[in-house]
Amino acid sequence: MSPAPEKSRHGNGDEGFKSRVTVVGSGNWGSVAAKLIASNALKLPSFHDEVRMWVFEEVLPNGEKLTDVINKTNENVKYLPGIKLGRNVVADPDLENAVKEANMLVFVTPHQFMDGICKKLSGEITGEVEAISLVKGMEVKKEGPCMISSLISKQLGINCCVLMGANIANEIAMEKFSEATVGYRESREIAETWVQLFSTPYFMVTAVHDVEGVELCGTLKNVVAIAAGFVDGLEMGNNTKAAIMRIGLREMRALSKLMFPSVKDSTFFESCGVADVITTCLGGRNRRVAEAFAQSGGKRSFDELEAEMLQGQKLQGVSTAREVYEVLNYCGWLEMFPLFATVHQICIGRLKPEAIVHYREHKA
Amino acid sequence: MSPAPEKSRHGNGDEGFKSRVTVVGSGNWGSVAAKLIASNALKLPSFHDEVRMWVFEEVLPNGEKLTDVINKTNENVKYLPGIKLGRNVVADPDLENAVKEANMLVFVTPHQFMDGICKKLSGEITGEVEAISLVKGMEVKKEGPCMISSLISKQLGINCCVLMGANIANEIAMEKFSEATVGYRESREIAETWVQLFSTPYFMVTAVHDVEGVELCGTLKNVVAIAAGFVDGLEMGNNTKAAIMRIGLREMRALSKLMFPSVKDSTFFESCGVADVITTCLGGRNRRVAEAFAQSGGKRSFDELEAEMLQGQKLQGVSTAREVYEVLNYCGWLEMFPLFATVHQICIGRLKPEAIVHYREHKA
Repeated sequence: MSPAPEKSRHGNGDEGFKSRVTVVGSGNWGSVAAKLIASNALKLPSFHDEVRMWVFEEVLPNGEKLTDVINKTNENVKYLPGIKLGRNVVADPDLENAVKEANMLVFVTPHQFMDGICKKLSGEITGEVEAISLVKGMEVKKEGPCMISSLISKQLGINCCVLMGANIANEIAMEKFSEATVGYRESREIAETWVQLFSTPYFMVTAVHDVEGVELCGTLKNVVAIAAGFVDGLEMGNNTKAAIMRIGLREMRALSKLMFPSVKDSTFFESCGVADVITTCLGGRNRRVAEAFAQSGGKRSFDELEAEMLQGQKLQGVSTAREVYEVLNYCGWLEMFPLFATVHQICIGRLKPEAIVHYREHKA
Repeated sequence: MSPAPEKSRHGNGDEGFKSRVTVVGSGNWGSVAAKLIASNALKLPSFHDEVRMWVFEEVLPNGEKLTDVINKTNENVKYLPGIKLGRNVVADPDLENAVKEANMLVFVTPHQFMDGICKKLSGEITGEVEAISLVKGMEVKKEGPCMISSLISKQLGINCCVLMGANIANEIAMEKFSEATVGYRESREIAETWVQLFSTPYFMVTAVHDVEGVELCGTLKNVVAIAAGFVDGLEMGNNTKAAIMRIGLREMRALSKLMFPSVKDSTFFESCGVADVITTCLGGRNRRVAEAFAQSGGKRSFDELEAEMLQGQKLQGVSTAREVYEVLNYCGWLEMFPLFATVHQICIGRLKPEAIVHYREHKA
């Protein structure tokens, strides 16, 4: 199951070279990514059939190891039950071993694990290796956002694209029609290789030359989802919800462009922009918990609702809203971003949920 | 209730001059428009208090005339029951009389009435009169779209702006937060006067220098709503729906720019663009009937479903989809607009509803 690479992994321009892909992460979205890639690796002559998937090892209730079960049943029974990943997916609990022969690395873990993973892999990656990050939710710090793609590039010394979009993992696993956006920094050719590796007839991927714009969409949309949840909880109707989503998209665009002047308007028309805002504001846990918060009139805290509704998962939108507020406050931009500023103030109880539609006052 | 104008209606630059507004139309949206304008006319010193509203006279079941009831109760009991329009709204069944003292005309009728209204008013309008059209659903013809604002401009010899956006009339009547976009052709100053006249703390209006872009949004979004209805009827999930809405918005933008090269990308980030697409694809009768069509597997015709579900109202989306298809076919653009082309082919039974997500084949 683990043959030596045909030549070496430093094989660009080499006719006989076949790329080897490793997916770092095996949660819900990671498993779906492995499934998409595995189906393409079999078809594309430039890729080695085997797709390795690093799995954070767990012992299942029946005493079996998760990696053993994945390799035996070809199914991630814990995070994507009922879906066959493809026989060419090999689960590997050893991170260094999982990546050592790969020249294409797909990072798809919760964002809080990325720092540790990069530290562990630092110095291990040599040669012409390309990376792509599917990790949503980088941190927004006063000195600028801490982009996961930059973290990977800096710590591992490799180029890193991103893939974002309206991607509810379970819907893609069921092969329902969906889209995604690859953001790249320099090489269009590398971006197109990633597009080839992820695209299927039901999953349409487009590459755009705007890695920061694509990645910021993935984070900032969660703040908009909180706002949309407030509107739902207050039963303000579709008109208001559409207005709030639009204003949210506008603020995403404006803030991204202030942070990175290279960010393009057109990126926000891609799947990572308007489509992801729509999906996240229609479903999604940020929206759902914010709805419950508004229904309680802001009397129950987000911490309390999170604990009750999300079984230990944390809301990204609330912490991102706080981080964005700190940036806006630090830079003197609060009045330019009334929706972002208001979301945070509602989250911490400084304003009532109804304030989500009172912009005039904030602009004054 | 009907004083002579302070000076004349040709009063630009005249200190004592007050503008007089007439709303041509008194349906659901027309009544809400009159309410918004009436509240502002009272507050703005540059406007005469009285707002005239032309009402297509009807005799109510109790034998009273609709105009009499509106003027007595201050309520359009037929088309906007339960909402006070403002005491300064005067219903007038005589079209020529209703407009004769006005220098600002607001057109808000079903689009099929506009040709007749313009013919009737032709030659009646003199002097510096400004118009704005809230009429959605102009016709798209092979030789180019028949824009309502152009019809008004040509037939009446006056400048005409448009106001479009995510505007569910009943939600605005209940003073729920909403937005709209004014599109103008030349004078920013005139556009700002309209913005002033419509804006309230719960209704935020923005002016953009792109009358065609704004007006085309109002029509083309109904085709996207049909597509979204198919996705709902097939229970394809939020991911797919978001993708279809995004692709629809992209095709709206691309087709508008092909028809009018002056159309701006930024217009599609306004309320008339992304927000109206969202509202229309979440609620709305186009979406609802298309959902029922897809649920029937395309076995029940749109005509049959319309008759059953809409009590005699007609679907704009289906006829617009046909008109757009004819333009695309005539111009050789079918492959550039797979969503628009597919919607029409599904509507006429040439393709199954499932085809709404099979783009590859259409692009090939």
